[in-house]
Amino acid sequence: MIQYCNHCGANVTFIIPPGDSLPRHVCNACGHIHYENPRLVVGCVAEWDNRILLCRRAIEPRHGFWTLPAGFMENGETTSQAAIRETHEEAGARILIDAPFAMISIAHINQVHLFYRGRMVDAHFAAGEESLEVRLCDPEEIPWDALAFHSVKLCLERYLADRAKGTYDFHETALPAP
Amino acid sequence: MIQYCNHCGANVTFIIPPGDSLPRHVCNACGHIHYENPRLVVGCVAEWDNRILLCRRAIEPRHGFWTLPAGFMENGETTSQAAIRETHEEAGARILIDAPFAMISIAHINQVHLFYRGRMVDAHFAAGEESLEVRLCDPEEIPWDALAFHSVKLCLERYLADRAKGTYDFHETALPAP
Repeated sequence: MIQYCNHCGANVTFIIPPGDSLPRHVCNACGHIHYENPRLVVGCVAEWDNRILLCRRAIEPRHGFWTLPAGFMENGETTSQAAIRETHEEAGARILIDAPFAMISIAHINQVHLFYRGRMVDAHFAAGEESLEVRLCDPEEIPWDALAFHSVKLCLERYLADRAKGTYDFHETALPAP
Repeated sequence: MIQYCNHCGANVTFIIPPGDSLPRHVCNACGHIHYENPRLVVGCVAEWDNRILLCRRAIEPRHGFWTLPAGFMENGETTSQAAIRETHEEAGARILIDAPFAMISIAHINQVHLFYRGRMVDAHFAAGEESLEVRLCDPEEIPWDALAFHSVKLCLERYLADRAKGTYDFHETALPAP
């Protein structure tokens, strides 16, 4: 919650600035407007030998649950660089990106989840700091009831369906508020 | 530039927090970490009667230059809702979304530009507050030398090429730093 201006340290007021249509935190002293915007979470469905790379989360939210390697995109990188970096950080795997696969808006938490399709360049993987363990799963081994996020479940369902039919589409959808 | 904590108003220091790999602005008093992440700019290539809706910008950057209706995605909305809202705000047009069309990372300005394909629901359009004028352009009328942004040029080029071949792909790319 924004209560102070990050430029000058004065108090802010939540008002609609002139010419705007939405309320923003506006500094009472210097007038700086603190915009808040959705964040991109970027990850990858990465394969090795037809198996899919999954991580068990070592951090909250959803500690102990399984997910695709993914995380917040950083300033100064592209979306595909973010997917490659996150897969390396969380799963210790180096990947080649094939294509964007799914983009899922989650409006109630101000996030957009973007998943690529990719391939591991070798069989190596290892749990990073944010993972308890990492595993390559055949489709029948995917822990559907222990997945961390609905977006990950949706992405894996679409991925396996596309893989079964032999062609991959780009899937765009939104998750409803719970 | 972040100099004060927006939770408590104290000074921040730009350091790598424990367990992180990148420097962040961390509050010296309460420890709050101020993450900064890329922002999504979302817009639409909207058609009416085979012509494409373009806006001439009434604001900086690139005042007076032509662009597709697009703007920063807001918290609480989906990507397609952002495209619909921006097209209405900037061009006074109501649209139906067909599909995502192009996603362009611009790492040096910490932005991702996402353009949809869509259709106007009727012939009505009108310049919004951020537009000097709005126009429906045949391909040969597009002001290529007066376009506001490289991402818009790239998107329009790909769009016309796809339209000419009769099938639309989803295009993902990145712009190099200038």
